[in-house]
Amino acid sequence: MTATQAEQVAMRHALSLAARGPRGINPQVGAVILAPTGEVLAEGWHHGAGTAHAEVDALSKLAPGAAHGATAVVTLEPCNHTGRTGPCSEALVAAGVARVIYAIADPGEASAGGAERLREVGIDVESGVLADDASALLDSWLTVQRLGRPHVTVKWAQSLDGRAAAADGTSQWITGPAARADVHRRRAEADAIVVGTGTLLADDPALTARQSDGTLYHHQPQPVVLGDRWVPDEAAVRKHPLLFLHRSGENLPAVLAELRDLGIQRVFVEGGPTIASAFVREGLADEILTYVAPTLIGYGADGTDRPALRSLGVDTIGDQRRLSVASVQTLGDDLLIVSHPFTTTGEI
Amino acid sequence: MTATQAEQVAMRHALSLAARGPRGINPQVGAVILAPTGEVLAEGWHHGAGTAHAEVDALSKLAPGAAHGATAVVTLEPCNHTGRTGPCSEALVAAGVARVIYAIADPGEASAGGAERLREVGIDVESGVLADDASALLDSWLTVQRLGRPHVTVKWAQSLDGRAAAADGTSQWITGPAARADVHRRRAEADAIVVGTGTLLADDPALTARQSDGTLYHHQPQPVVLGDRWVPDEAAVRKHPLLFLHRSGENLPAVLAELRDLGIQRVFVEGGPTIASAFVREGLADEILTYVAPTLIGYGADGTDRPALRSLGVDTIGDQRRLSVASVQTLGDDLLIVSHPFTTTGEI
Ligand SMILES: NC(=O)c1ccc[n+]([C@@H]2O[C@H](COP(=O)([O-])OP(=O)(O)OC[C@H]3O[C@@H](n4cnc5c(N)ncnc54)[C@H](OP(=O)(O)O)[C@@H]3O)[C@@H](O)[C@H]2O)c1
Ligand SMILES: NC(=O)c1ccc[n+]([C@@H]2O[C@H](COP(=O)([O-])OP(=O)(O)OC[C@H]3O[C@@H](n4cnc5c(N)ncnc54)[C@H](OP(=O)(O)O)[C@@H]3O)[C@@H](O)[C@H]2O)c1
Repeated sequence: MTATQAEQVAMRHALSLAARGPRGINPQVGAVILAPTGEVLAEGWHHGAGTAHAEVDALSKLAPGAAHGATAVVTLEPCNHTGRTGPCSEALVAAGVARVIYAIADPGEASAGGAERLREVGIDVESGVLADDASALLDSWLTVQRLGRPHVTVKWAQSLDGRAAAADGTSQWITGPAARADVHRRRAEADAIVVGTGTLLADDPALTARQSDGTLYHHQPQPVVLGDRWVPDEAAVRKHPLLFLHRSGENLPAVLAELRDLGIQRVFVEGGPTIASAFVREGLADEILTYVAPTLIGYGADGTDRPALRSLGVDTIGDQRRLSVASVQTLGDDLLIVSHPFTTTGEI
Repeated sequence: MTATQAEQVAMRHALSLAARGPRGINPQVGAVILAPTGEVLAEGWHHGAGTAHAEVDALSKLAPGAAHGATAVVTLEPCNHTGRTGPCSEALVAAGVARVIYAIADPGEASAGGAERLREVGIDVESGVLADDASALLDSWLTVQRLGRPHVTVKWAQSLDGRAAAADGTSQWITGPAARADVHRRRAEADAIVVGTGTLLADDPALTARQSDGTLYHHQPQPVVLGDRWVPDEAAVRKHPLLFLHRSGENLPAVLAELRDLGIQRVFVEGGPTIASAFVREGLADEILTYVAPTLIGYGADGTDRPALRSLGVDTIGDQRRLSVASVQTLGDDLLIVSHPFTTTGEI
């Protein structure tokens, strides 16, 4: 038996409820309780870490016994572990529901197994309803579960021959306005923006996501500065609407774990070359954005070179970091090449 | 009065006659002599430097006086200077032709002025007939006239971050088979292929244009080695079907002038990085082919860097060599970016 028409409608509604919750450490989940007649008895969603899960939120709106024989429609498999709230599977069992429908399985090691638990006690369980929509909604959260850390995009701008600046350090207008606007759009989609002290001290970046008229995007990424050097009192990042995090950066996995625990799912690494190279070298770059300006720079007369990437730990060609190119697009006079680390088992 | 139907047909025929001549120092030119009735009296073409020009070749096939009142249809404006052969304008005047039709003007400083000379003596002159086809046929030759040297394509292969090899010098398979086949196709379209002694000694390239099954293309480019170092007796280039030229390369304009005087119109610079950079630095690269492999290399643990381009004489960003990108295409896993030096007055 598959989902009825009324159950499909309820799932679509549960997905829209889920989206009301905040993106963070916990997934966005929605739930709808249907009477055997198909009538909606209650609805709920997860309001964020430390609050009730969606199913429990919905059940809490019903009088005791009112969910007996009902169907629970949930966007994510009910959890099976006791965290700050009890397991949802037990709450559903206790409420006496006869049937549970969910969109996608819980990828968590500790929390999975809810569906099995429900079946054990004789509850009818159906899964995969509007699974694609639920996966799309939880895309970043699911990535964090799979990687065990936030998704990392590393971005840099370079000349066609791979230079970030001329010998004297000047780099203004390597890429044009369309490329810069694209960077700001992507900053606004990220939860955090990472920069090294080298870039901070050289360029004094604001680390805000700005529209082309200079106004701030509604959503601003959390600024993160990596490096031991002091952030000057007059640094522009101190005027960012969010307080910046400042970490040494020596242990990048630890930085990413800390960001994950803050509920950060998408990290945008802005560079400079040393930081970008560190993320690539340590295999922590999931997506690479290379903005290529149609220009050649080479190195200077005195041999000074300013490459967009520095040491990647590649000493011989067999160790090169192969990529797979996802797209190449034109942005004004520039090109944007989007790539991912090439893996023989498929791309991240 | 414009060209008649018969004259247009004659011009198309003259273009096909022109193509029978060799590509070289002199342009490929064809000529057809038409009676006033539109009947073809004679045809001719230029067989190469030191032989009769097309008009003279055609007239030579007629009895004296037979061209009186006739129309000469020529693919290039009749020349007006005395070289190894007399001026064609005078030959046409002497033959008593009444009308001359040509496709495109002679761009040469010494040889131009033929049309004016013909008009002076009262001959009816018409120009621009099938001009686009004639320009296409003479494309490379016209470029040589305009630049005063052969057209130069500079090609290199690089990782996305602009490296030609890993720190230890290994570079095998940076780019894949489709990119390599594209290079060989383009070699076969060039008149000469240039390589530095650095590459010659490191890679021992054959400098032939080969099909994917290893067989040679019908047309082989003239191999040219630049650099003071000795070409080893066992070097693969010594087995090239054509004898290679070996020049110091210190004076690139002089090398190009020598190649031009050999009738070479299209030069393909294969590198390596030092030679490619020298052509770019001296403003001698008309077309740039960058084969970009989807890979990152950076520099080695000991700091050794092998960039695809070296010093271009750019010390500050204002001196960067701006390009305009003509096309970006996918070749297997690789990208080919074709660009030209950016000029505010339009591209070369
Ligand atoms: N082309 C581009 O897209 C682009 C983007 C950004 C910047 N830039 C340019 O790049 C230049 C700055 O480059 P940069 O390479 O010096 O700066 P960077 O990458 O921004 O910062 C490097 C510094 O980060 C700190 N750091 C923290 N964690 C690290 C780790 N895991 N590994 C290595 N270093 C770590 C170190 O400083 P501590 O000594 O403080 O620990 C290191 O010196 C500027 O001129 C800027 O304009 C270019
Ligand atoms: N990625 C690619 O597309 C590509 C293509 C080709 C080669 N490579 C690699 O590049 C490496 C060789 O690089 P390379 O830069 O040493 O070799 P190169 O550019 O082939 O040769 C450089 C040499 O050319 C001579 N030369 C002649 N005219 C010159 C001029 N006007 N300016 C400067 N030098 C001139 C000099 O040698 P003398 O001392 O003899 O005068 C100079 O050392 C090899 O490892 C090869 O595999 C890569």
